Amino acid sequence: MNPDVILPPQVAWASGVFANAPLIRKTTRLADLPDFFSDNNAWRGCDPQQRLYDVETIDSPSGEGALYVGVTHLYAGKIGDEFFMTRGHFHQRREQGEVYFGLCGRGLLLLQTASGEARLERVKPGSVHIIPSFTAHRLINTGDETLSALAVWPSVAGHDYAALAGGFALRVFASDHHLQEWEARND
Amino acid sequence: MNPDVILPPQVAWASGVFANAPLIRKTTRLADLPDFFSDNNAWRGCDPQQRLYDVETIDSPSGEGALYVGVTHLYAGKIGDEFFMTRGHFHQRREQGEVYFGLCGRGLLLLQTASGEARLERVKPGSVHIIPSFTAHRLINTGDETLSALAVWPSVAGHDYAALAGGFALRVFASDHHLQEWEARND
Repeated sequence: MNPDVILPPQVAWASGVFANAPLIRKTTRLADLPDFFSDNNAWRGCDPQQRLYDVETIDSPSGEGALYVGVTHLYAGKIGDEFFMTRGHFHQRREQGEVYFGLCGRGLLLLQTASGEARLERVKPGSVHIIPSFTAHRLINTGDETLSALAVWPSVAGHDYAALAGGFALRVFASDHHLQEWEARND
Repeated sequence: MNPDVILPPQVAWASGVFANAPLIRKTTRLADLPDFFSDNNAWRGCDPQQRLYDVETIDSPSGEGALYVGVTHLYAGKIGDEFFMTRGHFHQRREQGEVYFGLCGRGLLLLQTASGEARLERVKPGSVHIIPSFTAHRLINTGDETLSALAVWPSVAGHDYAALAGGFALRVFASDHHLQEWEARND
């Protein structure tokens, strides 16, 4: 045997930084999301070029059955009293699920069914989020540091943002004492 | 808003141990794999109850598009001169891929196409393995410690062991100096 051994991509668990991987990068800035946060005046008062989140996806084969791997880095901040969050989406192929793993930072994963029922899962280092079929998902950074989450999803899933153009059923604000108390109890 | 926040399952990156998760466990022992290692005499000389590997899978919904999450713990050892390895399989639905992440230990991921072409990827903490469609896969522990790898795969993928009843095209032995030199160079 004379094996050729391949050195695959690497991910740093503590930061979500990829190495040795061909990456596709996408940056979402405040300017990209008008009428998105509840406080429009606060949004207009911010630097439109402020980065909200970056997504890095490993460039890999697509097709039915093929899986993609990527990391979302959602920065810390608020618009008015509302925490920074990702746009969030249903998959175009609604039956396709996804898995998130919390890597660093603290936050929430907002999940919403087609009928509009919303629920929150706590995201922290090592958290495992099995997003079921037919379920929209959005990350919310409730902490002071970048929230980074590793994702695995079917390459055929696609994104449907239009179905949630009116927003999710639930928003998360820094002034929510119920949530703060819950977080203090479960830290 | 009065959010109910869910505490999801947790995985410890350094060990692959799950917490707060309903688990399905499967243990594979030497007795389960006759005519599997190349040295049958050495296999017969071992304790048949010796654990070769354990797989822990989070019990979660199945169905088209749903993803499963699990960890394989492949123990360190050799049968004769051949390293401990998992049985390995094609997916029953050949087009369904899978993703592995190395968590702890050192080893190899053996990949093999339908036409019998084999290749090896180095598994170590943080390694990312995007297993393409139509590709069989097996873990091999080349180190002195348990090799643990996190996996995400489509719940509909299924396992086809029969297609590889005659074995993979490539075996890995401790006496392989080419491999040892490669590992020394890339550690």
